[in-house]
Amino acid sequence: MKGFKFAGIHAQIKKNDQKDLGLIYCEKPAVAAALFTRNKVMAAPVILGKNKIKQGVCQAVLVNSGNANCFTGDQGIKDAIACSKMVATSLGISEDFVLVSSTGVIGANLPMDKFRTGVPDIVAHLSKNHVDDFADAILTTDTHRKIVKESGIIGDEKFSIMGIAKGSGMIRPDMATMLAFICTDVNISALDLKTSLSAANDKSFNRITIDGDTSTNDTLLALANSTSGVKINDTDSKKIFQDMLDKVCLELAKMIVKDGEGATKLIQIIVKGAQSEQDAFKASETIAHSNLVKTAIYGEDPNWGRITAAAGRSGAHVVPEKMDLFFDELPLVLKGQWLGYEAEKKAAQIMKKTEITITLDLNLGKELDSFWFCDFSEDYVKINAEYRS
Amino acid sequence: MKGFKFAGIHAQIKKNDQKDLGLIYCEKPAVAAALFTRNKVMAAPVILGKNKIKQGVCQAVLVNSGNANCFTGDQGIKDAIACSKMVATSLGISEDFVLVSSTGVIGANLPMDKFRTGVPDIVAHLSKNHVDDFADAILTTDTHRKIVKESGIIGDEKFSIMGIAKGSGMIRPDMATMLAFICTDVNISALDLKTSLSAANDKSFNRITIDGDTSTNDTLLALANSTSGVKINDTDSKKIFQDMLDKVCLELAKMIVKDGEGATKLIQIIVKGAQSEQDAFKASETIAHSNLVKTAIYGEDPNWGRITAAAGRSGAHVVPEKMDLFFDELPLVLKGQWLGYEAEKKAAQIMKKTEITITLDLNLGKELDSFWFCDFSEDYVKINAEYRS
Repeated sequence: MKGFKFAGIHAQIKKNDQKDLGLIYCEKPAVAAALFTRNKVMAAPVILGKNKIKQGVCQAVLVNSGNANCFTGDQGIKDAIACSKMVATSLGISEDFVLVSSTGVIGANLPMDKFRTGVPDIVAHLSKNHVDDFADAILTTDTHRKIVKESGIIGDEKFSIMGIAKGSGMIRPDMATMLAFICTDVNISALDLKTSLSAANDKSFNRITIDGDTSTNDTLLALANSTSGVKINDTDSKKIFQDMLDKVCLELAKMIVKDGEGATKLIQIIVKGAQSEQDAFKASETIAHSNLVKTAIYGEDPNWGRITAAAGRSGAHVVPEKMDLFFDELPLVLKGQWLGYEAEKKAAQIMKKTEITITLDLNLGKELDSFWFCDFSEDYVKINAEYRS
Repeated sequence: MKGFKFAGIHAQIKKNDQKDLGLIYCEKPAVAAALFTRNKVMAAPVILGKNKIKQGVCQAVLVNSGNANCFTGDQGIKDAIACSKMVATSLGISEDFVLVSSTGVIGANLPMDKFRTGVPDIVAHLSKNHVDDFADAILTTDTHRKIVKESGIIGDEKFSIMGIAKGSGMIRPDMATMLAFICTDVNISALDLKTSLSAANDKSFNRITIDGDTSTNDTLLALANSTSGVKINDTDSKKIFQDMLDKVCLELAKMIVKDGEGATKLIQIIVKGAQSEQDAFKASETIAHSNLVKTAIYGEDPNWGRITAAAGRSGAHVVPEKMDLFFDELPLVLKGQWLGYEAEKKAAQIMKKTEITITLDLNLGKELDSFWFCDFSEDYVKINAEYRS
């Protein structure tokens, strides 16, 4: 995409030889919006970023993996500022326009000597063709890079959105962190970008779960550099842009779930017929987080009792005798009645697929919500029980 | 205990040859109080029991394992009533004074023919010496029976409380159910018994978690038959009775957690120094439910980052720079500062124990709360992923 450059290198922050330092550079300052973790234990780069993003402008983003710069106190803040300054100096831009982002071990200070050599090095590697390198450098125990590209047309002009994410591969030894960076060449105001990003986030990253834990470092950042000439300034263009941003975010979110630790299946739970939006949210969220549901899915068991019981404890208004439950298109419970062993055998066949949609119709109203989640395997336990070394 | 009789037999409800039908009989109608699951998907015996217990009297409780009589519609209610009638007829007592309780497979109807032969059979087995049989008959995949007995003195007279529970062994194929029955020989009003039971429950069964799922059948029932002559009717006697009831309930609750599927360790998380009771509850509850914390404990990893981060996302007011964290008596974080590798090595030694107390001091106020929980192992996944057969 015109005007964006990327780089990813191994700066020896990680002990293995994988890439661990990434940089996105906009030739001109881009309009920027970001969303951060709601965890009150926030990493230093998140504390800084929340403040810096208020100006709605960003020209460079430095991302390291291997160290979260979290629970590092004043030193952590000083280190994050020092990193920003290094990037600004090496690129010859204002430090105000540099954001930093980190993911990895909690509680250890950043290895600043690695940044002092790494930052000039990575600036030298910037290229519009190095998106893959950047995408690799932000990974932790993800098993593959996550990039989504989409293009559209508004008026007669083409515009693009590219998203790059890392997911819930587990940072050894700490917690899963979701980082996602969106680059687009449209001309949009910072306020509109923030609004669009929030809306897309609610339908994607806020509708996925691996294990229900929220990282201290989660960050979703969007950069819009205007190079396409496409203006997002009226109802029609906003709708086209929103649809595409939704698509990019949802695709990235699904890639993150699929690549969850130990995950073997990608499940969408749809709760419909709820009396209120909140009920639809509560029921779908509780089902998606239930360990009993997740282990049953790993066992390829269409365990409708666990799904309906999770809805029952969710706080949503439910009436067991009104519930319908479907595995893909197949009904297994209708009006609270289990359809018997033959139906269950068919459902068990559907459970063998790697992508499954489960629909719970509460038949009480018109509201709907949905979550994407993965199953829960012995490997999740193994990955997360390993002693930090 | 005088005036109580028990029985437990194999009535062929379970396919294996384990006991599956239990009965408690009070020679005279006992004062009774009960608490039931808050899940809106409720089993038939829970629906019936909630209504019947309002009279505050009970003389017999029939409990079966192997079938939950849940999601069984009108037939389920009819079957539960039919079971009550059989017990009343066999014992020659009023059906109004009979409660039934079930735990097991969801969605299948009760095998009524087994009850028709089983109920007269179990009545013939009643004896004050058959507590163990009853305790065995209500188990599912629990690995051992759970009985707690305590005696005390009020005035010059001795009184006793006995509790019998089943825990979160997994009913193949469905969900964990907690059933607990308390027998005591004191003279107490139904209202006071309910108040005491609620208070004890809040400090015990409501402060434990295996996997965060709530069963459709959870039941806690107390029976007081007055045979000791001890009256619980003033501040002093109420306090003595409450303390002992708390002790019995907490002991049973801890036995349930220790025997959680795949559990290898029993952990108490204490959150203190919270600004409000609600904050202390939220933070301790979130830590106890975190899969990342539970897998780290299984891995004997004193992973303070996961514990503090769980507190951070709990919704409680927390300030990372004020947090102290202890493993048993050992501090690992003080005022938000990690104490380093040497302290962590010592904490790792503590993690090798099978019972560990973790204390998080928020240093923001005076409120405290606590949860008991178990770790999370590959065996939990294996037990719960097995296809129903």
